[in-house]
Amino acid sequence: MENYKTMDKIVSVCKDRGFVFPGSEIYGGLANTWDYGPLGVEVKNNIKKAWWKKFIQEPRYNVGLDSAILMNPRVWEASGHIGGFSDPLMDCKKCKARFRADHLIEDYMSKNGIEPEAVDSWTNEEMESYIGEKNIVCPECGEFEYTNIRQFNLMFKTFQGVTEDSKAEIYLRPETAQGIFTNFKHIARTSRKKMPFGIGQIGKSFRNEITPGNFIFRTREFEQMELEFFCKPGEDMEWFGYWREYCKNWLLNLGIAEESIRLRDHDEEELSHYSNATTDIEYRFPFGWGELWGIADRTDYDLKQHQEVSGENLLYTDPLTNEKYLPYCIEPSVGVDRVMLAFLTEAYTEEVLEDGSERALMKFHPALAPFKAAVFPLVKKLGDDAMKVYESLTEKFMVDYDEAGTIGKRYRRHDEIGTPLCITFDYDSLEDGCVTVRDRDTMEQTRVKIEDLEKLIEEKLKF
Amino acid sequence: MENYKTMDKIVSVCKDRGFVFPGSEIYGGLANTWDYGPLGVEVKNNIKKAWWKKFIQEPRYNVGLDSAILMNPRVWEASGHIGGFSDPLMDCKKCKARFRADHLIEDYMSKNGIEPEAVDSWTNEEMESYIGEKNIVCPECGEFEYTNIRQFNLMFKTFQGVTEDSKAEIYLRPETAQGIFTNFKHIARTSRKKMPFGIGQIGKSFRNEITPGNFIFRTREFEQMELEFFCKPGEDMEWFGYWREYCKNWLLNLGIAEESIRLRDHDEEELSHYSNATTDIEYRFPFGWGELWGIADRTDYDLKQHQEVSGENLLYTDPLTNEKYLPYCIEPSVGVDRVMLAFLTEAYTEEVLEDGSERALMKFHPALAPFKAAVFPLVKKLGDDAMKVYESLTEKFMVDYDEAGTIGKRYRRHDEIGTPLCITFDYDSLEDGCVTVRDRDTMEQTRVKIEDLEKLIEEKLKF
Repeated sequence: MENYKTMDKIVSVCKDRGFVFPGSEIYGGLANTWDYGPLGVEVKNNIKKAWWKKFIQEPRYNVGLDSAILMNPRVWEASGHIGGFSDPLMDCKKCKARFRADHLIEDYMSKNGIEPEAVDSWTNEEMESYIGEKNIVCPECGEFEYTNIRQFNLMFKTFQGVTEDSKAEIYLRPETAQGIFTNFKHIARTSRKKMPFGIGQIGKSFRNEITPGNFIFRTREFEQMELEFFCKPGEDMEWFGYWREYCKNWLLNLGIAEESIRLRDHDEEELSHYSNATTDIEYRFPFGWGELWGIADRTDYDLKQHQEVSGENLLYTDPLTNEKYLPYCIEPSVGVDRVMLAFLTEAYTEEVLEDGSERALMKFHPALAPFKAAVFPLVKKLGDDAMKVYESLTEKFMVDYDEAGTIGKRYRRHDEIGTPLCITFDYDSLEDGCVTVRDRDTMEQTRVKIEDLEKLIEEKLKF
Repeated sequence: MENYKTMDKIVSVCKDRGFVFPGSEIYGGLANTWDYGPLGVEVKNNIKKAWWKKFIQEPRYNVGLDSAILMNPRVWEASGHIGGFSDPLMDCKKCKARFRADHLIEDYMSKNGIEPEAVDSWTNEEMESYIGEKNIVCPECGEFEYTNIRQFNLMFKTFQGVTEDSKAEIYLRPETAQGIFTNFKHIARTSRKKMPFGIGQIGKSFRNEITPGNFIFRTREFEQMELEFFCKPGEDMEWFGYWREYCKNWLLNLGIAEESIRLRDHDEEELSHYSNATTDIEYRFPFGWGELWGIADRTDYDLKQHQEVSGENLLYTDPLTNEKYLPYCIEPSVGVDRVMLAFLTEAYTEEVLEDGSERALMKFHPALAPFKAAVFPLVKKLGDDAMKVYESLTEKFMVDYDEAGTIGKRYRRHDEIGTPLCITFDYDSLEDGCVTVRDRDTMEQTRVKIEDLEKLIEEKLKF
């Protein structure tokens, strides 16, 4: 990765150009919340549209869903989130610093060149005795005086209705997937889909992380794009391979370079007890490799859990053979904010031009760029005519109109926010009905008929 | 309104056809939560896209935003939500039923033909003494033995971080608008917009309503589409009129009939103390007229509050005159779920055909319909060819492929879910490259060249 792509640079570019602002900033912020500004919301929406197109609209197999964030708490019993969705915390009694015990151990292993182990599957007792044996001291104050480990549940809790007792206690969902499982039966019935078929959704989830961070990489409030793809047991590994490849190609087709990602298959020890196979697609962020997309074969674990806890019959009946079974499920799950950070990192570019001058640009795939084009009048006098071109395009695309400064300055401004095409209306345009179209990446200029602009932009957007 | 359009009918149509399911239903539900199924999520997304197109993409004035649900609690101090966003509750000591005191009084007034008053601006004491004077008994058990009124705050509370003390207490936002005000300065700076300009956003909000109800009309978790349009003081009433008309036209252009809506201007007594003018656009729901869209001139109230509480300078400097002022703000605010209920109600139609048979259909505007078209092979043998037509369209539009049952049955199925065009590939298609296109509303059939389908659909989607 080019060494100018640091997190500091990306965060400051995002703030200065209107992509991402710190949340509640005029009140000193709220730890680790971020607001997507005028350009950021467009990129984010474009990412969601690109996912919906390739995961819901185009594949005949799949349908969409938008289930509620607030769910009956028994959902989280069945899913295991009430029992098991927690971090192992311990405090230093001396300096009051608070740590995740598993992170303490992992850091110790990596510093001492010890082969890493799947610490997150250890019991509290195993972690405590390891920390004792190795005498791992507090990284803050250097003392060795910890509280016992206690498990801290990561679900945000709230109260519905007028009382704050345990009967009114509900949770903000920690993942969108469970809304899919609880609607499986309704959707199978009303959509008349046969196996295999998938249900996907995009929506907010909330996790009360102890150590959020790295800008929008890990936040307590985040947005997920999850597909649960149901199939016949025995056909699951084939579909696992299919979606593993499909997700990778989605990233590549939208401009992520091959060398920026790697696929990491979980080995036996790391696999969840119910999973037949899991792959993480990791992206090379400025802070190191980080998980972008998890693709997991979850077998029939979730439907079985919900069938048991709810008492509903969730069996699928094959319409041809009348065979009844609980489908297996492949889950490709990706965070919108996290994949947006990958696209921002990938797009950010500093170039030295032939004449020695420098330029900064965002090389977004046009489908993800906030503006698809910008329309300039060469001089203010041509404003009315340029405005007509702008208005004809803005019905279909997000387009900017810019009349401030020299054309060169306007090019630079739109390079910086990643606009793929700049369209200049000049004096000749009045005669020949053509405009000058300048390409962001090649900086080449061509004359194009005004009536051909729409088609030109359409072509650029394909992926 | 046609008398077959009852709430029961709409709720059951939504469930049976896959538009809206009760939330968490396999666990007995969670009061008043709803999940949008495969067709519902498409309609909901189409509504959001239609709003974004007309409120953000097309008007040169406006930009978008996507701010966090979790905000610094001081935001809600400044906005008045911590102090004043509450319902007046009282319990019947006999039967334990709980009521909103203002609703008790309003119901009494309407039953007794008393001119309605703005009860929601009364103090607790005024309400208690009115209830006493008129001897308004408990509607549940007929007794008169109430607790005192206490104010119940409608914000959902949760805790961020590992402790549940008041320092960690935060709220789920009760409206998206405040995220716009807190970002006003950032956006004015980075977007280089001059007055007047607007900032809009779509997102979830949460209100712990005591009496949610009427299906998706009033829910505790809901989605808003809010624009805050800033302008120079003195020009606010002109812009108020502009957006009032603009919102109405958005509804009409998307298929709402003139007679289904009415514009209700607030009189002096009903107006908030800071508002110069407010209009509610109301829709004639099956349960009566209900507020759909509130358009309010909020003057400089919100920016002034945030400037005072945060200590930040939020003045706008006119780039030409150097004049400094706090802009006034026009706020058109509409609920996605609520306006979707209006579109569902408006679309639901039962018709008696010329031959005496009946049909049920959803007359969605094509821009809102879940599928833009459905492709049928006349017989299974033509499946491969029909599939090619389907695949060419599905790159651009949400299209269904349907090969089950007679063509008549397939027409009926797609009438019921509101698909504007049904496209049949038959034996002649192999020869002439044309398909039969059947219109949902007129039921007319025409032959269309396959390569012209895309343009035909595009035309239908315009609004």
